[in-house]
Amino acid sequence: MRARIGSEAWLRYETVESEALREEYRNACAAVAIAGETKVLRTAATELKEAMRAMTGYSPELVAARDLEASGVIIGVLGGGDAAIDGAIGGEADAIGDEGYVIRSMRGSAGESGRILIAGKSDRGALYGTFHLIRLMQQREPLGGLHIVETPANGLRMINQWDNMDGSIERGYAGKSIFYRDGRFVEDLTRVREYARLLSSVGINAISINNVNVHREETKLITTAYEETLVKVADILRAYGIGLFLSINFASPIAIGGLSTADPLDPAVRGWWAERASDLYRAIPDFGGFLVKADSEFRPGPFTYGRNHADGANMLAEALAPHGGLVIWRCFVYNCLQDWRDRSTDRARAAYDHFTPLDGQFADNVILQIKNGPMDFQVREPVSPLFGGLRETNQVLELQITQEYTGQQKHVCYLVPQWKEVLDFDTHAAGEGTTVAKIANGGAWNRPYGGIAAVSNIGDDACWTGHPLAQANLYGYGRLIWNPSLTAEGIASEWIRLSHSCDPAVEDAVLGILMNSWGIYESYTAPLGVGWMVSPNHHYGPNVDGYEYSKWGTYHFADCRGIGVDRTIGTGTGYAAQYHSPWRETYDSPESCPDELLLFFHHVPYTHVLRSGKTVIQHIYDTHFEGAEAAAALLDEWLSLRGKINEEDFELVASRLAEQRDHAKEWRDVINTYFCRKSGIADGQGRLIY
Amino acid sequence: MRARIGSEAWLRYETVESEALREEYRNACAAVAIAGETKVLRTAATELKEAMRAMTGYSPELVAARDLEASGVIIGVLGGGDAAIDGAIGGEADAIGDEGYVIRSMRGSAGESGRILIAGKSDRGALYGTFHLIRLMQQREPLGGLHIVETPANGLRMINQWDNMDGSIERGYAGKSIFYRDGRFVEDLTRVREYARLLSSVGINAISINNVNVHREETKLITTAYEETLVKVADILRAYGIGLFLSINFASPIAIGGLSTADPLDPAVRGWWAERASDLYRAIPDFGGFLVKADSEFRPGPFTYGRNHADGANMLAEALAPHGGLVIWRCFVYNCLQDWRDRSTDRARAAYDHFTPLDGQFADNVILQIKNGPMDFQVREPVSPLFGGLRETNQVLELQITQEYTGQQKHVCYLVPQWKEVLDFDTHAAGEGTTVAKIANGGAWNRPYGGIAAVSNIGDDACWTGHPLAQANLYGYGRLIWNPSLTAEGIASEWIRLSHSCDPAVEDAVLGILMNSWGIYESYTAPLGVGWMVSPNHHYGPNVDGYEYSKWGTYHFADCRGIGVDRTIGTGTGYAAQYHSPWRETYDSPESCPDELLLFFHHVPYTHVLRSGKTVIQHIYDTHFEGAEAAAALLDEWLSLRGKINEEDFELVASRLAEQRDHAKEWRDVINTYFCRKSGIADGQGRLIY
Repeated sequence: MRARIGSEAWLRYETVESEALREEYRNACAAVAIAGETKVLRTAATELKEAMRAMTGYSPELVAARDLEASGVIIGVLGGGDAAIDGAIGGEADAIGDEGYVIRSMRGSAGESGRILIAGKSDRGALYGTFHLIRLMQQREPLGGLHIVETPANGLRMINQWDNMDGSIERGYAGKSIFYRDGRFVEDLTRVREYARLLSSVGINAISINNVNVHREETKLITTAYEETLVKVADILRAYGIGLFLSINFASPIAIGGLSTADPLDPAVRGWWAERASDLYRAIPDFGGFLVKADSEFRPGPFTYGRNHADGANMLAEALAPHGGLVIWRCFVYNCLQDWRDRSTDRARAAYDHFTPLDGQFADNVILQIKNGPMDFQVREPVSPLFGGLRETNQVLELQITQEYTGQQKHVCYLVPQWKEVLDFDTHAAGEGTTVAKIANGGAWNRPYGGIAAVSNIGDDACWTGHPLAQANLYGYGRLIWNPSLTAEGIASEWIRLSHSCDPAVEDAVLGILMNSWGIYESYTAPLGVGWMVSPNHHYGPNVDGYEYSKWGTYHFADCRGIGVDRTIGTGTGYAAQYHSPWRETYDSPESCPDELLLFFHHVPYTHVLRSGKTVIQHIYDTHFEGAEAAAALLDEWLSLRGKINEEDFELVASRLAEQRDHAKEWRDVINTYFCRKSGIADGQGRLIY
Repeated sequence: MRARIGSEAWLRYETVESEALREEYRNACAAVAIAGETKVLRTAATELKEAMRAMTGYSPELVAARDLEASGVIIGVLGGGDAAIDGAIGGEADAIGDEGYVIRSMRGSAGESGRILIAGKSDRGALYGTFHLIRLMQQREPLGGLHIVETPANGLRMINQWDNMDGSIERGYAGKSIFYRDGRFVEDLTRVREYARLLSSVGINAISINNVNVHREETKLITTAYEETLVKVADILRAYGIGLFLSINFASPIAIGGLSTADPLDPAVRGWWAERASDLYRAIPDFGGFLVKADSEFRPGPFTYGRNHADGANMLAEALAPHGGLVIWRCFVYNCLQDWRDRSTDRARAAYDHFTPLDGQFADNVILQIKNGPMDFQVREPVSPLFGGLRETNQVLELQITQEYTGQQKHVCYLVPQWKEVLDFDTHAAGEGTTVAKIANGGAWNRPYGGIAAVSNIGDDACWTGHPLAQANLYGYGRLIWNPSLTAEGIASEWIRLSHSCDPAVEDAVLGILMNSWGIYESYTAPLGVGWMVSPNHHYGPNVDGYEYSKWGTYHFADCRGIGVDRTIGTGTGYAAQYHSPWRETYDSPESCPDELLLFFHHVPYTHVLRSGKTVIQHIYDTHFEGAEAAAALLDEWLSLRGKINEEDFELVASRLAEQRDHAKEWRDVINTYFCRKSGIADGQGRLIY
């Protein structure tokens, strides 16, 4: 097995082992033609040619469509002037959205393998189709009789980089930024291009390249000072069909504009933003727009001026609208100076309370970006009730690929199952079937914009993600938001075959590790949905009271009798009322509330019997003993793959799994000891608790 | 009241209000002569002249002793060639040590006020006597009939700066270093000279100028690279009678010497250190020696090479001995990778266990530096049993002036009462009366070297110490170690009169604040001697479990039934056995153990009745409610001084006391809530606990 090139990730092109299959691929892709001349189509052709060369040793010629012999691949755009494409595929144009594609094998004459047509309604679609064809070959699929019709479920398929210009990455666990170093852009943008390839190959079409917490130097990214480099970055991204966004500082007019206010209703402020937008679009005509964290965790925002979020967002929207730009406005807004003594204020309520009164007041090119849960990317949270609370507002779902609270890429935690639960959650907002997936993509209420965004998990680490298995989350994110009906298993299997091996033994073992990982991580960390039992700031490692007496609104209220947060309608914070029926009633009662969310919604005695039949305290002990044991077993499972995985990945994953095993034991002991000391209730199985 | 010059601290020379007294001082100090010509004597004369000028408007002439008229001050050294001095004072030479002094008023002729003689056996002594005379005038004392005989109780009276060359100060709460900035020495050493004046005025005779955790650049301080600046610093210090020491990195031979080992028994290593010592003494002939933190908290040391602390210290001692230098070797050694599950290892035992077996093995010019308590400068600890565990080893007591665990100079905490308790502690090591004071100064077993060292609390803050009242700790430290029989009240009163005002209303109020402050701080923080309920790393703010599941050996073991560390001989770690009788028995029994140390030695139920008659839990509630109330009252007390204290100090202290009031309330609520939740026992007085 050849040494792995770390950065290739799932675009790993091993030589096809079977001579017959190599021959088939060579015949099918004897030449490559693009119908039409765009950067993106040329990217597609080049990607296919490179993949062929690496996998078959044969480098197909790039020819004009009219010169293509009987065999070969034509990549093009419907209605782009190529008769073959329009003739063969035109009828399916209605079946695909602007960024979907069709792949068809056209039967050739006797002895000829015929042509493969890849067509989209846009060149992006054609590029995605080309990556699809490459994926088939990576998985050693035959290319005969192809008839594939794909269209993305979500319009906006976005990545948020939380990169700072000093090279650090907020909540990054895979090295430094690939974009910045020492206060400026990196000189060599090779890694940015490689990243664009990876993202494009799974259908990502938008990226914001700086942290939502916009610091001093980053504030200047929207000025002409950075225009030259931004144009270069945009060119690289554009060739892969990815639109460039920037996170902005709401106080920019003061910080860098020389104005005395950033009041969104002030004409000078509006004018200043309009100028910035004009400058940006003059340099980058397809610039995506702004991502905004405002009035959140000490970031400036419209509240300073007695304005609301709609005032703030609409002001930016007005500046961008003439150019077709978007404002993506984050809903992660809460009181971050809460007094822990105050049980009436509930951080979980905050996004809903802030934004539902503004429904319908946002401009058409504003999109609200809503985190999946009401708190902050915990291993287990209910779905944010803001999904279902807004009907006349564009929304995107925000997920977190980077494993801030889920093991920081030292622990394996495959998040696609969690995301699927979120997307499949039926809010009942417009009757049964109003899933988060339908709300986010705009379908539920026929909104012009919708989609999904997520915080990236990559850095300049050789394998991109610190933990090689964490690549599955980036891959899975792209695949899932393209098509939320894919299964987590299916996505994982695909990723394993592409990234590691088509050997069924490898696939079985790694699939087992990935599919169990979220549950295992949940089992040895904070129990029953209560969350937050981590050390402040870095969020790694068990610390049961770490956030208990803090200002962040994140408490468990454990005492010697019981634990949990009363968010019921009758005696609690009333948060449960933010859901539509039947969730409102389901969550409001400790009898019907799902076990895994019990402590999120209820304060119960340790002796409370769960739906599972166990008491809360015994559940805590059992899951923690079992979780630590299961974490140790992950390593054993992995070690069985020695020789079947390239050495470098094998060793790196093995060392991370060993750390996870040890750290899971630490979690087990701290959590169990804490609750045993606090409750005074012994483990029913008499196991050692310290 | 004139504006205060922040940096003058207690060398504050307000004009004498009474014309008669001014006249008396002018007459008494009509001229100043030094008998003998040394830098230090010249410093003494200059200091007196400057003090006179500032306090009386009259600047006495400096004259040769033989030219002194009938009135004036002669400052000199016994046996230095001045007949007047030898005649009048020579008989008292036996009564003063090398650094003591005698001050005598010699009656003049009719109408003449006569002469004042200030004499030491060394010029340092004469300088200290001169500062004594100045103190009298600052306090408006008459100068007639003086007959003062003073001698310091301790030979080494040292300050440890924990300053890093990047300008930071480890555990510093008063700005940046006055010695370093941005990786090098500061250009302008004015502040260093001002600091030397302050230290000398209270009798400090030695200083180590870099952190005991010696980082990369600081390792090079012992090389010729820094020789030029070190010579300048040594010159400044020498003029004030202060010897220069450096903290060294035990791994220097590897880090900067190009050797492959730092093994203390390796001849090349010994040779390398000998060369460094020669270099240093060639440049600074009176260089003091090395301060060493080795095999402690990840610092390198002799253990790496299978050697012990005596091997390590003696190797350095051998290098320094030809030049008269000292090795000060810290005993702050413990297992800093402890497993919190392991209750048999006891950090409190560590210093005693490490060093008593080595008693008698250290070279004559090695001094062990022993922290006052067995843990780490908590607000309350027992005295380290290592005092009393060593008879054939030089020892110095290490105190901490900087308020790491005692409010970080945001809270007022006058530490002299704590230090007095330590010094007065009777170890019974050589029968009754073997106090720590006697052991530290070498008297108990007639050791050649002894004394006291302390970690400084100053930085480049305008008032030196962040909190103006924290100056009292630096002043008090110097005064107390000069004469441990001084009372904490007396020292505080003196400091108030010197630094702020001789107004009895001011003295009463500030004295009340200072004298109550340690008890108040103790009352609202960790209870009954258990310590450590602070946030990790920065050590500020309540965090009951902050160190409970850590590697640092610092636990309280609180569960729903009780709290405390069992350090008894029968069932605990056996730490109590490190004490001589009767302390061994006193501490070993929960009935005889002093309340304030109960949880340090015993794990008891919350319902255990203290010697005070209260239960442990009620004691916790009561002290925390009372402590927070008392902290609030400190502010009220201070505010009564408006107009009687200079405005700048007044406002600064008021703002710090307001922060202390608020923070004490936070301590109260977190501690009380934690224990109420954990024990389930309600407050007997029904006060609000969250």
